[in-house]
Amino acid sequence: MKLINKTITIQTTKLYEFVGLEEKINQAIKESGIKEGFCLIRIGHTTASLVVTEKDPAVHQDFIRNLKRILPEKQRWEHSYEGPINARGHQATALFGSTHWSPVKNGELSLGTWQGIFFVELFEARARGIDLTILGE
Amino acid sequence: MKLINKTITIQTTKLYEFVGLEEKINQAIKESGIKEGFCLIRIGHTTASLVVTEKDPAVHQDFIRNLKRILPEKQRWEHSYEGPINARGHQATALFGSTHWSPVKNGELSLGTWQGIFFVELFEARARGIDLTILGE
Amino acid sequence: MKLINKTITIQTTKLYEFVGLEEKINQAIKESGIKEGFCLIRIGHTTASLVVTEKDPAVHQDFIRNLKRILPEKQRWEHSYEGPINARGHQATALFGSTHWSPVKNGELSLGTWQGIFFVELFEARARGIDLTILGE
Repeated sequence: MKLINKTITIQTTKLYEFVGLEEKINQAIKESGIKEGFCLIRIGHTTASLVVTEKDPAVHQDFIRNLKRILPEKQRWEHSYEGPINARGHQATALFGSTHWSPVKNGELSLGTWQGIFFVELFEARARGIDLTILGE
Repeated sequence: MKLINKTITIQTTKLYEFVGLEEKINQAIKESGIKEGFCLIRIGHTTASLVVTEKDPAVHQDFIRNLKRILPEKQRWEHSYEGPINARGHQATALFGSTHWSPVKNGELSLGTWQGIFFVELFEARARGIDLTILGE
Repeated sequence: MKLINKTITIQTTKLYEFVGLEEKINQAIKESGIKEGFCLIRIGHTTASLVVTEKDPAVHQDFIRNLKRILPEKQRWEHSYEGPINARGHQATALFGSTHWSPVKNGELSLGTWQGIFFVELFEARARGIDLTILGE
């Protein structure tokens, strides 16, 4: 049994961008040589989320609209020194989460038919890291 | 150390149904022969959630009522071709999540006193799959 | 490869308290002797959450204020025999989640720069347990 810890990096370009991660994660799995096992996924950030949903831009637009209604920009923010968008980003991370995992089969992520794994930028254009642990044989 | 990947299946019968999963997961752990380790749980769907909460129908009713208020059916949905209930289901999956994990002790899930693991149907009666990775000795 | 299952315990002192967990988790990793691998984290409770966010009390205050608005105390609760705060706690657990995981590097949690791992008490002062699986070499 082999265990690989690896961090992949992306560059987001704007607030509320959805960045699909499967291609980069599958490349990391391929490089690990692991065919059957699992992959843990975790983002190391507090103003971004890891969201598993359909690969449909309409679903992503619905996500952002609902996020804005659930966490209104105009409210009293205690964590205010970076502005309300940043403050909201922190709360959205807590609400939508920052981890996922998937079985690995035949050397790649085994996702459901409609599942895409997305990094969602909740602050501003940034270099971002996604931590993986891949374990199996 | 042994690693087992397995998918269990259920048939939901209606929107907003809570289906308890412990019995089927414990059966898979028993079949694996693993006594001490852990079990990763992931649903492979984008209109359903994996929710860990009390085994009390009143708590489940509170869950559904709050879901409906947090994500109102009557709003502009971009992902509209399957109707507002489906569109809401997508957002509820993102909000409530689709993974969990538990230690395995004495050959079964080691849950807290009040914890039940539920598949929550957020669209309509369907055959659904729950992916498990069980690892240990 | 070594696998350790361990439960750490804390004593919360009041509703909505944030208790940082890194020190106790890192102590458990140190005792395991595992240097490179991963750590799964799960709370065994239905009126508490495991939240990963900044170690800034202002962010925690924003969290609680938003939780109260998203899940209003004054609503019809079906699960009512322990009062509305308890009922809300159950729904907040479902919403904010009860698991996390992190890579382990150099014998400790490998968290992002701003990430803290917090147990959030959603009911009342209690003895609480956090389950860990640590795996690696």
